Amino acid sequence: MSQFRQDLLTKRWILIAPERGNRPGAHFEENKKISGFCPFCPGSEDKTPPELFVVRKSGWANGPGWDIRVVSNKWPILQIEGDLDRQAEGPYSTMHGIGAHEVIIENPDHVKHIHQLSVEQTELILRAIKERMVDLEKDSRFRYLLLYKNDGDTAGASLEHSHLQLNAFPVIPSEVVLELQPCSEYFIAHERCLLCDISDYESKVSSRTILESINYISFCPFASRVPYEVMIMPKRTYHRAFYTEMDNLQLNDLAQVLKITLNKLHNIKYFLEKIGDLQYNLILHIAPFFDHSPISNNGRTVKLDYHWHIHIVPRITKIAGLEWGAGIFVNPIFPEIAAQELREIKV
Amino acid sequence: MSQFRQDLLTKRWILIAPERGNRPGAHFEENKKISGFCPFCPGSEDKTPPELFVVRKSGWANGPGWDIRVVSNKWPILQIEGDLDRQAEGPYSTMHGIGAHEVIIENPDHVKHIHQLSVEQTELILRAIKERMVDLEKDSRFRYLLLYKNDGDTAGASLEHSHLQLNAFPVIPSEVVLELQPCSEYFIAHERCLLCDISDYESKVSSRTILESINYISFCPFASRVPYEVMIMPKRTYHRAFYTEMDNLQLNDLAQVLKITLNKLHNIKYFLEKIGDLQYNLILHIAPFFDHSPISNNGRTVKLDYHWHIHIVPRITKIAGLEWGAGIFVNPIFPEIAAQELREIKV
Repeated sequence: MSQFRQDLLTKRWILIAPERGNRPGAHFEENKKISGFCPFCPGSEDKTPPELFVVRKSGWANGPGWDIRVVSNKWPILQIEGDLDRQAEGPYSTMHGIGAHEVIIENPDHVKHIHQLSVEQTELILRAIKERMVDLEKDSRFRYLLLYKNDGDTAGASLEHSHLQLNAFPVIPSEVVLELQPCSEYFIAHERCLLCDISDYESKVSSRTILESINYISFCPFASRVPYEVMIMPKRTYHRAFYTEMDNLQLNDLAQVLKITLNKLHNIKYFLEKIGDLQYNLILHIAPFFDHSPISNNGRTVKLDYHWHIHIVPRITKIAGLEWGAGIFVNPIFPEIAAQELREIKV
Repeated sequence: MSQFRQDLLTKRWILIAPERGNRPGAHFEENKKISGFCPFCPGSEDKTPPELFVVRKSGWANGPGWDIRVVSNKWPILQIEGDLDRQAEGPYSTMHGIGAHEVIIENPDHVKHIHQLSVEQTELILRAIKERMVDLEKDSRFRYLLLYKNDGDTAGASLEHSHLQLNAFPVIPSEVVLELQPCSEYFIAHERCLLCDISDYESKVSSRTILESINYISFCPFASRVPYEVMIMPKRTYHRAFYTEMDNLQLNDLAQVLKITLNKLHNIKYFLEKIGDLQYNLILHIAPFFDHSPISNNGRTVKLDYHWHIHIVPRITKIAGLEWGAGIFVNPIFPEIAAQELREIKV
């Protein structure tokens, strides 16, 4: 079984998962496209664990005929059964590698990615995420649900067929902890959500805006770590800490914003010329459950100081000593220039 | 000129550096070995900016005959001249991209890396670092000196000839901020340095120890992010916040520990079999200058709650959405197993 361990120096939780070393594509040089056979294509349903969620037009459970399919990861980093067994080891803290690791197979077509799907299909993906989150957030062992996407070799994808991954963690990931603290301080100081204020300010100055809809703003963050980094977040009027609080109208709106944003990113000359096509990570940040801040009502229903959002991180610049050692990212393109280019691309 | 920008959500400082986009090897696919010509080899001294520090047996300044050479980076991310011009832009903070960006050319031989050098030459490198730090820490605009090494393509090296990089920053890098806070809390709670306690504990349990010398311990951290991650740090008796506080005897000891540790890493089967050779980042963490914690005496002379150390991060696992989005690293090898293997390798 894998094991969570906390680094005393940074309070970062990491996961030791020996079984992960053996999965296909685990190492740099092995990450070739697995051609010929795809476990995510229709007809290969028996090559994945059984369906946790599915929308199908026809056919039997765990057979072809589906539009979208969610299954457990065949090479999970976490195990769903068992207790956490929190332990001290000298000054250190450990926990069993308990959690969920699911895969959302976005559509039956091996070669189609989100930006090439219909708005309806994209909305289906967004609803599937919500369904799975609603289910997983019932489990009191979990503190956090992390949805992310590795699109392309460089971004860490080991399979070509477009998919998202959803993890339930018994710990709050350090990158989220890093965001929660300034948000909490800001709320205590100003009685306003920092992310609401950022969306207001970005909408007002508009120099980094890519597009706005009724509910959302899509923009290049002021301190973008990489060229063409994007954030998508609800506006102040639609402040929500949890993605599961969004209704179908809001998910339909998000489907359009996400599809257009990704379409624009895929048409950036920089990517087409430099690396052939966009490769990226997409990460959905929500509030944790049961955080004990005084302004949280058990994290579930009313959380005023945090606001869900999506990070889209194109992978082109290298992660070297400066980024590893200092967390200082060097970005050669001003976000205002990136945003202007993205605004002007017609899709 | 490049620009520092602070992300409100994480307090992370990033650097927008448009001129960096044009340097050789700036992009993934361009990072081919530049063969035939090397600006760091003897005879090419006029292809680099002039020497900031040099040890030479013979010859003129900025000509051949040197053993070690420190020059400004020809493609600096920061500019040494100018004022910081700290500004607010709406809710955000910016600063001019002022700082130092130096390159330490470790030895004249194009193909020799630290683990292949003599202890004397390694000591020379460690002394050169100290000399440059002593010079740069006089500049009151700077808050932090970051020494790091990108060894190998994957680790972000754009030139083959082995070198270290030294940056002076007017901001405290976020990865260091992340370490400072638990260290400060720990000291306030226990009146002991957390890093001293870690080195004591690791020495006592010894299951993650690679080697110990009079002054140092080299070990695989309890929560290693990647296979064969290593930390080298002074023991409690030699608690120092700043690298510049080390004397020549201590640098000689460090040269031996560093050389042996790197030699052992280069002989790990995992690297030899999986990626041909070790590629890694090395990062030196020291305390910042002028941090305003109550237990710091202006950061320079007495700083009890932080302790310099070296991180060595082999680059083999991929940095995907989980690492980017959550800061959760998945490591397939237990640090205790990695350390045992490293201990047993004879060099």
